[in-house]
Amino acid sequence: MGVKVVKFGGSSLADAIQIEKTKNIIEKDPDRKYVVVSAPGKRFSEDNKITDLLYLCKTHIEHNLDYRQIFQGIKDRFTAVKANLKIDVDLDKHFKEIEENLSNGASEDYIASRGEFLNAIVISSYLGYDFVDSADLIVFDERGNLKKEVTNQNLREELKKHDRVVLPGFYGANESGDIITFSRGGSDVTGALVAKAIDADMYENWTDVSGLLMADPRIVDNPKPMKNVSYKELRELSYMGAKVLHEDAIFPAREADIPINIRNTNRPDDDGTFITSGENLDSENSIVKGIAGCKGFTSISIYQSMLSGQKGFIRKVSEILEDFDIPLEHIPNGIDTVSVIIDNKYLEGRLDDVLDMFDKRLSADTIDVDDDLALIATVGLGMARRPGTAAALFSALYEENINIKMIDQGSSELNIIVGVATADLEKAINAIYKAFVN
Amino acid sequence: MGVKVVKFGGSSLADAIQIEKTKNIIEKDPDRKYVVVSAPGKRFSEDNKITDLLYLCKTHIEHNLDYRQIFQGIKDRFTAVKANLKIDVDLDKHFKEIEENLSNGASEDYIASRGEFLNAIVISSYLGYDFVDSADLIVFDERGNLKKEVTNQNLREELKKHDRVVLPGFYGANESGDIITFSRGGSDVTGALVAKAIDADMYENWTDVSGLLMADPRIVDNPKPMKNVSYKELRELSYMGAKVLHEDAIFPAREADIPINIRNTNRPDDDGTFITSGENLDSENSIVKGIAGCKGFTSISIYQSMLSGQKGFIRKVSEILEDFDIPLEHIPNGIDTVSVIIDNKYLEGRLDDVLDMFDKRLSADTIDVDDDLALIATVGLGMARRPGTAAALFSALYEENINIKMIDQGSSELNIIVGVATADLEKAINAIYKAFVN
Repeated sequence: MGVKVVKFGGSSLADAIQIEKTKNIIEKDPDRKYVVVSAPGKRFSEDNKITDLLYLCKTHIEHNLDYRQIFQGIKDRFTAVKANLKIDVDLDKHFKEIEENLSNGASEDYIASRGEFLNAIVISSYLGYDFVDSADLIVFDERGNLKKEVTNQNLREELKKHDRVVLPGFYGANESGDIITFSRGGSDVTGALVAKAIDADMYENWTDVSGLLMADPRIVDNPKPMKNVSYKELRELSYMGAKVLHEDAIFPAREADIPINIRNTNRPDDDGTFITSGENLDSENSIVKGIAGCKGFTSISIYQSMLSGQKGFIRKVSEILEDFDIPLEHIPNGIDTVSVIIDNKYLEGRLDDVLDMFDKRLSADTIDVDDDLALIATVGLGMARRPGTAAALFSALYEENINIKMIDQGSSELNIIVGVATADLEKAINAIYKAFVN
Repeated sequence: MGVKVVKFGGSSLADAIQIEKTKNIIEKDPDRKYVVVSAPGKRFSEDNKITDLLYLCKTHIEHNLDYRQIFQGIKDRFTAVKANLKIDVDLDKHFKEIEENLSNGASEDYIASRGEFLNAIVISSYLGYDFVDSADLIVFDERGNLKKEVTNQNLREELKKHDRVVLPGFYGANESGDIITFSRGGSDVTGALVAKAIDADMYENWTDVSGLLMADPRIVDNPKPMKNVSYKELRELSYMGAKVLHEDAIFPAREADIPINIRNTNRPDDDGTFITSGENLDSENSIVKGIAGCKGFTSISIYQSMLSGQKGFIRKVSEILEDFDIPLEHIPNGIDTVSVIIDNKYLEGRLDDVLDMFDKRLSADTIDVDDDLALIATVGLGMARRPGTAAALFSALYEENINIKMIDQGSSELNIIVGVATADLEKAINAIYKAFVN
């Protein structure tokens, strides 16, 4: 028997019907002892998230506008949930306290966090689980950075006192007791911190999709979810812009080597995606785990005859970029050419300065600039070492008549990175997806 | 009307029959005014090159052995050529002078150069061209380095006094008048220097093959010659081990933008290979100009989570290699991995030291070493930008079930570099050759 931390996102907790589903899910597996909840999300596409409404209250207060109508809407949603779930909990007490704090100039972080707080109160009551406030356990320093060690110890000590617990996600408090929210990753981080602290066997992250998708659904029509993916693979995909769990949300679980299972509250029988530290090559699954692409790169190619064999040239190139505080994405090189691939966001308005410096400090014959570059990462552990992967990838691009501007695949790589023209990005991702998935 | 410098290699001048062929070639085109000659080469496969015999004379003298029998063989070859060509030239005078110098401890360079000297005497007489001794024009400094400016000026001034000239290749002299031979590139360098000095329209380099071959004939059966190739393409191929003209022999012509035409004395109607500065994409020719491969590389892959976006990591890696005085061939990188590809010859006995230093100065999670790496360069200007090249290349490797360890293609590249296991090198080159040539 193991222990599972289950985190439910906003859409899984948007109303009583959704919360009933989560109860069924939790009760189906006695290991699901630690529940982390988000604030209620949208019930339908035009609906508002509770957290957005809370931020709106704060804005009204700042502009001396009446926020009470909006806050009434928030109260009404929680009250309706309470009524529908037939639970006995004194929400009015909490509403009153929050309104008092709002009037007394409570911080934005405090206000934003109340959706999770109230939802955790409601759901703990509905499940018959203990409510534990994250504000008492998750600790930030005065600069707003998480104090990992103290947090881990607090969570561990408190949670072992309870058999079954609901915690609000998204926030903690500093040492003065002021509420602080996570700047990135939200309730996912809370779940991962809890999983690490109690040394969980699994961190289940329940959402409204049946796992992480192999490609961006705005680009590929109805992409398949990944069955399993390693932290490393996920990192490569997320770096290239794939919408997955935020790094901050993965790291605590990764450090403790706890598998993450992304599940769909609306389709609880789907296996979802397992995120683990190891390589998972099940035969069912394609060797390519996912495809992600990013626009907005510039390639600067420096040609100098007799460059190869010169020691220190690549060092000089990278030093110059470091002086500009520009990270170097890739540095493919031929015999007498070195290209540097740079994310445009670091280059804005400075391209000419960078080129001037290359000109000054490198005795280049020619320097070419290509600012119409998009990169595509095709990711899968071991994929690159399997004969045929590259052939399938480049044949797929060829069939779509897509010009390849750059290729980068390292020796121990789980990733083939291809550069194409910006206009070709979506066509290229679709071509690669089709080549490996169908 | 233009001016051509024609250089003939040893096999083109091995005996009277060969020299007759060169005369026909020269007389067929009145532009062929400047002739640079090598020493007589082998007439048949077990034969000796004159230059080798001359070196052997020197070795005999150093060991106090009688060299006269060997020198007699050299004299006999020249005398036979003279008789067969029916020319009137006093070779005995030169033989006598050389023997005197030999007895008086002449330098190795002096002795080695006499094959070219005597051959130029013979051929100038046969053609009715002026003989000009390179020793009076090509100048080396006291450390044996070519003095380019003085040489260029000397050649220019002297040669404009003559309508048609034969010069011996391979040597010049220092300012004290001592003969100095080129350490690399031999008579090819002389031809290129002459071509540059007189601003020739073409530098014809006559050999025993109908041009530069698209692949190593020891690996690919009967490879086709290239029709044309640019200096840049040639440089990429030669760096990867293709046997082509030596850099030193190309540079003077390249500097002056003089095309080089590699021709076959035994098949003078073949067009041979044109080496030019520009891109030559004729429709007859494959977009791939050549394929060259090299064994003996090691890949060191450094993995560190959250490496991407770190500034200075590539700089640190290249600094460490620079400290070891190791040039960096390639540095493919993924999101959290940087691989460095190093030529084994720089690594000998020091791999552990390098790894220790990586360990100490980079906070890597893991470092993997793969010392079974061969690199293949598939070269052609513009090739990399043409859709389908990569597809054809990787499909060819896939059909042979060859595992791809690394890929490197830069943004303005004329070269796709692929890493394979050492044992796969020859199979891979053949597969790529077949994919592009047939």
